[in-house]
Formats: sequence, C-alpha cells, structure tokens
Amino acid sequence: MTVGTDAHGEPLTDAELRSLHRWWQAANYLSAGQIYLMDNPLLREPLRPEHIKPRLLGHWGTTPGLTFVYAHLNRAIMRRKLEMMYVTGPGHGGPGMVAASWLEGTYGEVYPDVGQDLAGLRRLFTQFSFPGGIPSHAAPETPGSINEGGELGYSLAHAYGAAFDNPQLTVACVIGDGEAETGPLATAWHSTRFLDPVRDGAVLPILHLNGFKIASPTVLARIPEEELRSLLRGYGHEPWFVSGRDPVAMHHGFARALDACLDDIAAIQVRARGRGATERPRWPMIVLRTPKGWTGPAELHGKPVEGSWRSHQVPLPAPREDPEQLRQLEAWLRSYDPATLFEPDGAPVPDIRELHPRGARRMSASPHADGGLLLRALRLPDFRDYGVRVERAGGAKASATGVLGEFLRDVLRENRNEGIFRMFSPDENNSNRLGAVLEATGRAWMAEADADDDAALVPDGRLMEMLSEHTCQGWLEGYLLTGRHGLFSCYEAFVHIVDSMFNQHAKWLKVSRELPWRRPVASLNYLLTSHVWQQDHNGFSHQDPGFIDHVMNKKAEIVRVYLPPDANTLLSVVDHCLRSRNYVNVVVAGKQPEDQYLDIEAAETHCTRGIGIWDWASNDQEGDVDAVLGCAGDVPTKEVLAAVSLLRRSLPELRLRVVNVVDLMRLQDERQHPHGLSDVEFDALFTTDRPVIFAYHGYPWLIHRLTYRRTNHENIHVRGYNEEGTTTTPFDMRVLNGIDRFHLAIDVIDRVPRLGPTAAYARQEFQDALLRHRRHVTTHGEDLPEVRDWSWPSWTRTS
Amino acid sequence: MTVGTDAHGEPLTDAELRSLHRWWQAANYLSAGQIYLMDNPLLREPLRPEHIKPRLLGHWGTTPGLTFVYAHLNRAIMRRKLEMMYVTGPGHGGPGMVAASWLEGTYGEVYPDVGQDLAGLRRLFTQFSFPGGIPSHAAPETPGSINEGGELGYSLAHAYGAAFDNPQLTVACVIGDGEAETGPLATAWHSTRFLDPVRDGAVLPILHLNGFKIASPTVLARIPEEELRSLLRGYGHEPWFVSGRDPVAMHHGFARALDACLDDIAAIQVRARGRGATERPRWPMIVLRTPKGWTGPAELHGKPVEGSWRSHQVPLPAPREDPEQLRQLEAWLRSYDPATLFEPDGAPVPDIRELHPRGARRMSASPHADGGLLLRALRLPDFRDYGVRVERAGGAKASATGVLGEFLRDVLRENRNEGIFRMFSPDENNSNRLGAVLEATGRAWMAEADADDDAALVPDGRLMEMLSEHTCQGWLEGYLLTGRHGLFSCYEAFVHIVDSMFNQHAKWLKVSRELPWRRPVASLNYLLTSHVWQQDHNGFSHQDPGFIDHVMNKKAEIVRVYLPPDANTLLSVVDHCLRSRNYVNVVVAGKQPEDQYLDIEAAETHCTRGIGIWDWASNDQEGDVDAVLGCAGDVPTKEVLAAVSLLRRSLPELRLRVVNVVDLMRLQDERQHPHGLSDVEFDALFTTDRPVIFAYHGYPWLIHRLTYRRTNHENIHVRGYNEEGTTTTPFDMRVLNGIDRFHLAIDVIDRVPRLGPTAAYARQEFQDALLRHRRHVTTHGEDLPEVRDWSWPSWTRTS
Ligand SMILES: Cc1ncc(C[n+]2csc(CCOP(=O)(O)OP(=O)(O)O)c2C)c(N)n1
Ligand SMILES: Cc1ncc(C[n+]2csc(CCOP(=O)(O)OP(=O)(O)O)c2C)c(N)n1
Ligand SMILES: [Mg+2]
Ligand SMILES: [Mg+2]
Repeated sequence: MTVGTDAHGEPLTDAELRSLHRWWQAANYLSAGQIYLMDNPLLREPLRPEHIKPRLLGHWGTTPGLTFVYAHLNRAIMRRKLEMMYVTGPGHGGPGMVAASWLEGTYGEVYPDVGQDLAGLRRLFTQFSFPGGIPSHAAPETPGSINEGGELGYSLAHAYGAAFDNPQLTVACVIGDGEAETGPLATAWHSTRFLDPVRDGAVLPILHLNGFKIASPTVLARIPEEELRSLLRGYGHEPWFVSGRDPVAMHHGFARALDACLDDIAAIQVRARGRGATERPRWPMIVLRTPKGWTGPAELHGKPVEGSWRSHQVPLPAPREDPEQLRQLEAWLRSYDPATLFEPDGAPVPDIRELHPRGARRMSASPHADGGLLLRALRLPDFRDYGVRVERAGGAKASATGVLGEFLRDVLRENRNEGIFRMFSPDENNSNRLGAVLEATGRAWMAEADADDDAALVPDGRLMEMLSEHTCQGWLEGYLLTGRHGLFSCYEAFVHIVDSMFNQHAKWLKVSRELPWRRPVASLNYLLTSHVWQQDHNGFSHQDPGFIDHVMNKKAEIVRVYLPPDANTLLSVVDHCLRSRNYVNVVVAGKQPEDQYLDIEAAETHCTRGIGIWDWASNDQEGDVDAVLGCAGDVPTKEVLAAVSLLRRSLPELRLRVVNVVDLMRLQDERQHPHGLSDVEFDALFTTDRPVIFAYHGYPWLIHRLTYRRTNHENIHVRGYNEEGTTTTPFDMRVLNGIDRFHLAIDVIDRVPRLGPTAAYARQEFQDALLRHRRHVTTHGEDLPEVRDWSWPSWTRTS
Repeated sequence: MTVGTDAHGEPLTDAELRSLHRWWQAANYLSAGQIYLMDNPLLREPLRPEHIKPRLLGHWGTTPGLTFVYAHLNRAIMRRKLEMMYVTGPGHGGPGMVAASWLEGTYGEVYPDVGQDLAGLRRLFTQFSFPGGIPSHAAPETPGSINEGGELGYSLAHAYGAAFDNPQLTVACVIGDGEAETGPLATAWHSTRFLDPVRDGAVLPILHLNGFKIASPTVLARIPEEELRSLLRGYGHEPWFVSGRDPVAMHHGFARALDACLDDIAAIQVRARGRGATERPRWPMIVLRTPKGWTGPAELHGKPVEGSWRSHQVPLPAPREDPEQLRQLEAWLRSYDPATLFEPDGAPVPDIRELHPRGARRMSASPHADGGLLLRALRLPDFRDYGVRVERAGGAKASATGVLGEFLRDVLRENRNEGIFRMFSPDENNSNRLGAVLEATGRAWMAEADADDDAALVPDGRLMEMLSEHTCQGWLEGYLLTGRHGLFSCYEAFVHIVDSMFNQHAKWLKVSRELPWRRPVASLNYLLTSHVWQQDHNGFSHQDPGFIDHVMNKKAEIVRVYLPPDANTLLSVVDHCLRSRNYVNVVVAGKQPEDQYLDIEAAETHCTRGIGIWDWASNDQEGDVDAVLGCAGDVPTKEVLAAVSLLRRSLPELRLRVVNVVDLMRLQDERQHPHGLSDVEFDALFTTDRPVIFAYHGYPWLIHRLTYRRTNHENIHVRGYNEEGTTTTPFDMRVLNGIDRFHLAIDVIDRVPRLGPTAAYARQEFQDALLRHRRHVTTHGEDLPEVRDWSWPSWTRTS
C-alpha cells in the first residue's frame, strides 16, 4: 500500500503530468512571490533589492505541500465531477491557498482589484502580510477557507463538521505533522466512529509528514512506518503512503494514492447507501512524506534549508541586504519558469488557466466554505407551547433544561428531513437533563453497539456525544461555517477547555463580518448548565463560572450572554439564539427542579427587554425606594427573592425593588455594546443614589466592569462566586461564597441608613440563621428545611 | 498476549488470591460505605433508612476497577520492593482512593480523627461528600494523589511528569475509557517518545475499559480488540489485555499481566542502563476490561446496573425511600462480608492490615505525591551577572528573552546533576529566543533522529518540546507536584489552550495551602512571549492577551502577574519566580531586540518594589504634576516614553510623571491581594485628582478592575488591546488599538485643562503623524523611520 518513488506503472499521461506539474509550479511561484516581491512580479527584469519587501513575513515550509495536494485534488474533481472542500491544518501556508484561488479566478471575482492581470498580480504580491493588505494565514479573507489554522489542531474536527449531513461532499483535510501532536487533533481522528457513510459526506485526511515543525522534527515523522500505520489503523483508517522528493515520481505516486482513496470512498458509499451495509468502514487516507520547503532553496550558508525546519518561515531571510541571498532567491523563483507560466499581461497561460474545475466546483469557490450562502432558517416550533404553567411566582417547579429538552426535541423533529441541525455534548446531554431529545433522535454512533447499551446509538443520530469538548466544538464550528445550525451543551466549568477555540471562532466571526462577500452564518450557541452552583456530585474542580468573563473580552458585536432565571425565560432565550446569526451566544441555566417565576408571556416580554423590575417582588411602587436588589442567574435570583421575603417580613417599612437581568449586556453602556442600556434607562432602574445589592451568577467584578461608567456605580455592591467550593449542599455553596439570602439581607440592612438601630434585631436573626445552617448541614448533610422548602411566599401579593 | 478469563496456569497461590480478594472487598465495602452510610458502618444491625445519608453523592462505577488495580499494585510493590505512585484518571473514583489509604493506615496518620477504629470508620463514611467533610474526588485532601481527576484528560501527562528524573519510580496510571476520548489524553500517549529509560522512571498505563462513560459506551471499548491493539502499538506500547468479570480468573489474569509488564519494564531499564541500549523501547501497558460498577448491584427495576452506564454515580439512588432498594443495598454491602473484614472495633482484620507495603512504600504515603517533602531549592546563578549594560535609558538594545535564555542556560547547567529542573515549550523555545538553553542541554527525544536535524535531540534533554500545550502543561504539573521545578514558555495567545488546566492547578494549590500536611511546591512559571504586540509573521489569531484576565479570577494568594519592561527587569522577575513556592507566576515579556531602560541594580530595585516612578522620564519633580502616564508591559512602556518625549518637546511647560508597573497586583487594593498597595501609596503615585493615562499590555478593563476602589479611579483613562489586529507592522498594531505614542500624547492634551488652545498645534501634529504613518506603512510596508528608530532621547536628561 506504499506508493513510493520507485513505483512503476504510471497513472498519469505525459500531458496530465506536465500540466499538473506546471500548475503546481505556478502556485509555488505565486506563493514565494507573495512572501518576497513588491515589484517585478513576472521577473521580467533581473531581481534587484528594491523589488523585495522590506519586511519578509510568512511561512514557506508548508506551502509547496499544500499546493501539491491542491493541484491533484483539482485533477480528481474534474475527472470525477466531485464536490470537494479543502481544509488545511497548517493555515500558515496561507500564500498557497491564496495562490490557488487566484489561479482558479475566484480571487479576482471576490477581490476585483486582484484579478488575473499585471496590476492584480502586483497587488496579489504586495498585499500579502502587508499593512492594509491580507494576513499571512488561511484566514476568513481567503476564499475557500473555513479554518484559519493559526492555532493548530482543529482542521480534522472542522473537516468532519463540514462533512456531516453533506452526503455528496468530500472534504480533503491536510494535517500538519506538527499539528498532529496537539491534543485536539490527536483525538479528532476518532471521528471515524461518528461519521455515517449514508447520510454524511467523506473526509479524506492527508497527513503531511514534511518532517518538521518550527524548530525540530515531528513525532509522527520519526517513528517507524509500521508503527505509524498501526496508529492510523487504530484510528479506523487505511493509510496510503506517498513518499519522496522527485516531482515526477511523486506526481504519479500521489495521483495513484488519491485515485485509490477516492475509489475506496465511492465503494464505501455505494455499499452503505446502495446495499445498506451497516458495518463501520475502514476509511482510506494518505500519508504524504515530502521535504519541508520542497522545491525551495536547498541550503543557506552551508546549512540545509529544503528538507529542514529552516524552511519553516522565510527560507532566505535577507535577500535585500545580502547579494548572495538575492542571487539564490532569483534562482529559486526562476526555477519555476515564470515566463512560461504567465502571459506578459500577468494572466496565467491557457493550459494553467484551464487546469481547474469551473464555478462552484472550484474548492476556492465552494459555497460550503461561505456557509451563509447555503444557510436555511431552522423550522422552529412555537416555544410558547412548551411553557411551564406558572399561576403565581414560585407556584411551580420545573427543571429549566428539562423543559428546554422538550422544545429541542421538537426542533430536531421539525428539521429532521432538512438535515441542518445537530446537538453536541461531551457525554453530558442526559446529565444536563436534555434527555428528551432522545425521543426525536439518537446518539450518532458507528462503533460497536450492544443490545444492553440502552443509549440510543444509531448511525444517523443527531446528538453528537464524544467525551471531547474540543471535538464537539470543532465539529460544531465546521458544521456552522458550512451553513448549518447547532447547540453545544456543556458543564459550565469545563467549557474553559475550549476557551481558545472560542477565541478563534470569535475572531473568525469578527473578521468575516467585515467582509461583504461572507454571508452571515448561524450563531454558535452554548448552553452552559450543571453550573457552578449545582455541581452536587462533584466538587471544586467543577465550579468555575469564568467562561462569561473570557467571552466578554471579545468584540461586543459578536458576543451575547444570557442568564435566564427559570424555564420559561430559558425557552424564550434559546428560541432567540437559534434565530440569530454571526454571534456567539452563551446561555447559562440550571438543570435542577426549581421555582418558576414568570408565565410564558411574561417570560417573553422580560427576555425581549433583557432586564426589568419584577413588580410582584418589589414594594417601592408607592414610595421612595430604599434599596435595589439586582440579580442575574437562576440561583442568585432565588436568593435575592428569598432575601426580599425575609426583609419584608422582618422590616415591613423597607421599600425594596427587585431588578432581574437576563441579558447581561444590558448592563453595559450603549456606547460599548449594542444591547447596552442608555444612562437614562439604567438610572431609572437602578436609581442614581440608592444602594444596589447585586447578586450575580459568576465572579463579581464582571458586574463592576459592566457598570463602572454608570452614575450609581459607587453604590453597587456585588456578590458572586468567590472561588470557594467543595462537594457540599446547594445552599452551603451559596453561603461559602456569601451570595445566600442571609448575607444579602444583611447587606441591605447595612446599607440603608434610615433603618437605624431597630434593624439590629433582624440583622442578628439572619446571622443566627447562618450559624444554624452551618450546624445543620454538618450534622445532617442536607440543607435546613426552611431553606430547602422555601419558595416565594404568597403573602407578598397582597402587600 | 491476551490474558483472559480462560487462561490457565495460575500465577497466584490460593493464599495470595484469598488475601488479594479480601483486600479488594474491604476497599469496595469502604467505598460503597462512604457513598451511602452515615451510621451502622459495620452493618452490625440490619440496615435501616436512617443509616443512609440524606443526599447520596459520588461515583461508584469506576471505583471497583481502581481498587482492584490498587490491590494488585500493592502485591507487586511488596514482592518486588518497588517505589510506586498511583495516578487515577477517573478521579471521581475518590472513595476508592480514600478507602485504600485508610486501609494502609495513611489516612489515620494524616487525619487522626479518621483512624482505624469505630469512630474513625464512622467519620470516614460520614465525611465523604458531606458539608465540612471531604470532596468526592481524588482531591488534594486525598493522600497519595497528584491528580484530582475532576476534569478528565490529564492523568497520563501527570504520570509522565512524575516519572521524569525519578529513575527508581514506577508510576501506575489508570486511564478511563471515557477520559481516553479527550484530546489531552489522546496525545499524551505520545509521551513514550520523550521518556528516557536511563534517566527517567517508568509509566505503566492501565487503560480501564469498563465500557461506559456517563450515559453511553466509550469509543475504545467498542472497536475491535485488534484495532485497539493496533492503536496502542502505534503509541509505542505493547498492550496486555485482561478481560472478564469472574474475580478469581481476573485476579490471576491481572497478576500475570502486571508481572509481565513489570518484568518488561525491569528488562528495559537493565538494557538501557546497564547495557547502554539506545533504541526506544516498546513499553508495556495493560488494557483492563471489566464491567462498570463491578460487584455492585446487578440491576434496578429490571434494567442492568452493573456493566452499564447506570452504575456511573449512585447505583441505587433511593434506598432511604424505597424499601426494595434498601434491601438491595444491604445485600450488596453484605456481599463483601464486612464481618470477616473488620474487627468489632472497626480496624481491618490482621490479614488485611498486613496486605500493603510499609511506610513510604505505601502509594498513599508516597513522598512523591506530596512533592514539597522532596523539594530542594534550585541552585541559581546570580542573575545580576547576566544584566545588559545600560548606561542611560534607551541607550542599549537587547532581546529580553534572549538575555533570559543565557540565565536559564546556566540554571540548567548548575542543576544538571540535581535533575530537578526542566523547561517546557510547544515547539517554541527557539522562536521565543530562548535558544541559548541549548548550549546547556538538548531537546528530550527518544524517537528517530537524523544527522541533518540540527535540533539538539538527545534522550536526556531537559528541554521538553512537543507541539501540545496540554502535554507541556500536564508534564510540568506532574513534575512540580512531585517536588521539582520548571518553566513553561508559550506564545501568549495560545496559552489559552490550557486555561482550564491552569484553573485546575490553581484550585489544587488553593486547597493544598489549606492542608497543613501538604508541603509547598515550586510555583508554576509561565513565560508568555511572542505576545500580542509582536506577532509579526502571524495575524489576528495570534493576538490575544486575555490569559492575564483569566488568571485574575483565581484566588489572590495563588496568582502573580509580572510585566517586566525590559531585559534586566525580566531577569530579576524570573529569578524571583524560580525561588517562589505555591504560586502560579505569569510573566509576559517580549522577544524582539528593544530599548533597555534600567541597569541591573535599578531593575532589581524596581522589580522588588513592583511599581515605581521613573524619575528620569518624569519632569514633575519641582512642581505640580499635570498628568500621570502609567504603563505596564514592554510595548506600552515604550509608547508611553515616546509620548512623553513628544509632549516634552512640543509642550515643555507640561509636568508629566511616568509610573511603570512590573507587578500588576500592586495596583490592586491591599485588602484584595497581598501585593496590593495601600491607598496612601497608590495616591502618592497616581495622585488623587490628576488625569492618569495608562497604557496597558492587555485588555484595558483589567486596569479598571484592579483600580476601581482607588480615590483617583475616575480620572484613570486606560488604553490597551482592543481586539483589533492582523498581520501588519509592530507600530501599526499599536495604532490599530490606539495605544501608540500619538494617541497617548493626544489623550494627555485632551485631559490637561490648563493647556488651553495653544496645545491645539501639538495635537494636530500628532494627528497628522497618524495619517503619515498610515500612508507610509501601506506604501512601504514598514514603519516610519522616525518611529522605528526612536529611542529615549538624551536631551531629556538635562531638562
Ligand atoms: C496550538 C499551536 N501551538 C503552537 C503554534 C506555533 N506554531 C506555528 S507553526 C508551528 C509548526 C507547525 O508544524 P506542522 O504542523 O508540521 O506544519 P508545517 O510543517 O506544515 O509547517 C507551530 C508550533 C501554533 N500555531 N499553534
Ligand atoms: C473534561 C471533562 N468533560 C466531561 C466531564 C464529565 N464527566 C465526568 S465522569 C465522565 C465519564 C468518565 O468516563 P470514564 O473516563 O470512562 O470513567 P469511568 O467509566 O471509569 O467512570 C464525564 C464525561 C469531565 N469530568 N471532564
Ligand atoms: Mg510539518
Ligand atoms: Mg469508563
């Protein structure tokens, strides 16, 4: 199965070989040109220092491999009339991707000033890694790309996400041998156990063993080939090896391997689709072993460059200063024979211009890579039909995520035939109480199953559960960027595992929004549950609400954070998120059966407003307010309400206002976030001079950050998670962090000056309650009945 | 190589088998007891509802596997006089670890009120997952643990970290089959290519295929055994399979496999150490296939529990309420025959009390697992000897990390024979300009090498470079927690990849500090370079300074953040970090050749202070100050200085003060952080009423968060990274984010009221400079000479 340099029996005709090779040379020339040249783009004159950019930025090493594969994929697309996408893990090979899309004509279509003429060619070269130009990576600016590749490790998961529900699509995915050392990449290989050959497209991994990463060899290039083969078989693949450096032999070898793989893929699909074969196929893949920086300068100052880590970035670093390097550079560039590749007007010569598929078959023009083009809205059932009946605040109990699960079940049902919605979770769907979705779908599963499993395993399940937050996130990103919809449910603490992937996706969206040709895609929706306040079976490691803070560092136009206090508000929020575009929505909600406050209409109104006074809990309607109690999050809301009920019973003269926040961004200044309240609105809610006691779900300072420009900021006192925790009772967690009703009630007493000495009795009562709590939980292991059974009291309605 | 239930020829004598099995039963009984019982710990009476805890929390499913392995490892330790540690990936099996350490007597030594008597036993049971008691995981509270295991995926990297430089140690590491699906775990297998059999100890992975995770089967349990074997061989292992459920057969099978593995390990070590074999060995490992929840209740309500995901947490959820479950629970607990395992006074019977190694050989008492016990201080050369000569501020240029590299080189040299220091980097050591360390050591590498590599690959290198931030972090954590020292150098943006691992380590340290028996360990030191302002070859994906914000959410007593402005301050900071204990130190520093400001003495003073006025840059010595310019970070410092020089030239009457911050925590309130300045000190530096223009390395709001309680907060105007970026010139990055000298100078003009209309000329000059900049970079691709060549002007000295 090794297709090496010494193979015989050539799969390519001489003409094919010649044009393939010339296309590759053209792409390599254009790549090197982007890195080096700011003038003399066709080398019509001898190369002079002033033709060279003053700052040489970019990565050559990976590029010839990427262009080599591109050329061959094009041949296959044309011969087989394939629909293909190209995902390149080493996205730093950006020049290669840009070169290919320029050769295919896509670049000039998208960026008319970079067309196939001399001005366009010149601009193609100068813009690269240049101020006001384009970045060095396979970024959103690059037509055909859904994977920036700057942060390595996500290509394979992205490729699978693109292939899901696209049965006609083949996603070729080049994986860098350095990239393959990352954790996210290393586990994404197991995606073979989740891809349904009937419903989904194919992924063709091409592991590029160019032997090196930045400064040293790579692991996978330096284990015996048998060990590597064993590894890849262990992932469920059958690898084809293509190794060497002689272009002719390599062209034949790669063409043969690619043909074999595509034949295999076609056969697998026929077997599965036509003949209903249900066993998991062994998917083909290619291991491509080439020198790093292939076809580039062989050496510099007597040290190898081609075939060495030295080719990683700019192989000849100083041709402007060093005449010897200038000479080397010129020889290298001329080795591609540019005069035979381009017309004097800068356009590629006809045989090269011909050598790519047409229209949307061009990988650089794949509509899948500009997923918004293909995006269809979800069919959403009316979320109001799933509302919990709430006759009075506190008069009903429900699990918020449990209720949401029923809505999501029907979202799955309504869109079953569309194949445009999936849910993703690292083995937490049921733990997060979204079990109802299994009435509408199963867990995607191509590995072995057992009658006893009782886990709803089916090849075409729409619930994607692998115990890898990275893979879930990567699959979902790939799925969204190719024009579909999804939701990721995750334990709140462990979503930090994908902090960095979120960063990259948010950056991708930010740049995409600035590109008119990139159409909006569906938002990335996180449902964070099993949150910091409800990690009963686990302890401190599971208690971390910091993802919200992390998200807040990204551009205001990208991120949205929602903290619905109960089930009906959660329904309304998720409905909204599933309709939104180009955002990252973070929804934090509890899973335990808890008090419900708003009926479905009130919930919808409240969520649309995003923030509001809860008049039924407040008693300042007819007088001046003594203190405002703000709350954001289900548990803080409950504690605020409980504090209010304690205070109103003990100190009936106190005038309190409860403000609940669902949309965290409302707190921010309207100049800082499109959802931000105006100062007038904010002051109307929170007053300009009364104490505000704010109970917040996460780390308290975020509320300060959001409100520090507000008039009344000095009077805002925030309680939140204070990084204290362990395995304990739900209420004890609140006490440990001082966010419980008693601390909140004491806060109010301490901050309302007019209460005077009589309030000392109530204050002491609350302090005693904390001691009673401590005694009770350490003895009985559960919360005080008065705490456990508390719900919003009915007597307040008449007051 | 499969050792299955049908194997013949028993490795255990009947007596051995009997005591092994009884020890296992005792451990299982104690585990189940912890989950369920708050009374009647020896089941002397019939089980009644009131004996059961009101809240049942914890995880049974993984536990019997962990205790089974523990029992067998103990046998091996005793027979072979081994030094062993036990790392359990599924740390939620905490009860099993606690049970084992109680049986070994360690628990009672560490926690005298939980000794081997009836009161101790009762407390052992009640304290588990109980308020005021212990958490449910293999947490810091658990003797013998270095891996909490709450967030899955890090066990194997931790195990390798522990084994490095401990040639006599064998680290047994149980990996959950669910855990094995995570990215970090999936790539940690490649650690086989980095472990030197001569210098390092051995890691014995035990992949525990109990078939399930929380709610569904696992990938590795559901691929054909041949495919799994192939995968594990691909990782460089030779797996031994032990599969079944019959205890007798499984005891024999596991004993045989374990003996074979330990024989192999011994042989590998003899070959490498004695005979100098240099090839990479194929390390043995065990695949243990058992039912999940083995020996627990077979079923509930007709559905399987043992051998199913239903055993994951509490297999019988309601024995207090449901008499049938109570009966089942009693039968289950009695199936272990507690009356034969424990004396009436609660102590284990003699044969069980005997069945474990003594003293420090007990895995629960391993000094490696309380690494502070073994910690020796590093031998540190005098950092002052590495200082850059700085005759006047701005009068020298140096790469800060380059200079640091020389110091680190000699740290490596000085400690070469100690074997207590390593450096870790995801293939970025050289890119981060720490190349000098390769003069003192090589890159650890057991894979194939090539004469041409020129990458300093050696088996016993002390530079650990795998392109996996997760593995680097996991190795380092394991290395530190077992009493050694290290430094992790990473691109600033990509350290977010380990956000979540940092969280877990910070939480570990926080809890450890509260445990008097856990001795302080060396701090985890991050050197973040190739930072947001200097990612020339790359673009937006590489620009993210948010790790500092992330770190700030953790307890003040754990985290330290340093932003040294130049090489000499970096030396002083790193020297300090390498001496510190129990912290996470985050050091952010540039790698490009840049202006130097402080000579080595001034640097030391400045860093010890952590914050200070730079009098040589200020001109308010003899008058009232008009504005304070604060700066933190190398690039912001340079821009502030440049702004000051512009302003002092154009508006010589302006009185400016420059305050540089190295230790970010100094800005915070002394009540919030031990490094915090008092209000008096803060006000003295920043005044109580003058405008403060603060240029900060990262996202600006962090400075507000740190200073919002300060008197002068309202006048603090912060510029920082505003999430704008691409591949562009260094100065253009600053301009895009408004942190450049011209914006800063304009800020000052706009905020000093007394300047009046004449300043409009200077203001316009600075605005024009921004336009000139834009024109220049988009035409020439490099920064304006006046910007590029700027350094602190000598004329200021005389003013
Ligand atoms: C997660 C991550 N860590 C570190 C880097 C820094 N980096 C950029 S390129 C590179 C080497 C990539 O090697 P490989 O995947 O083999 O790509 P190629 O050899 O094709 O350039 C590294 C480590 C990165 N981009 N992403
Ligand atoms: C990174 C991470 N994601 C999700 C979880 C939630 N979780 C807790 S236990 C568990 C299943 C673990 O399965 P396995 O490793 O097989 O352990 P075992 O079967 O031995 O319990 C999951 C998904 C977690 N703890 N860590
Ligand atoms: Mg490579
Ligand atoms: Mg398992």
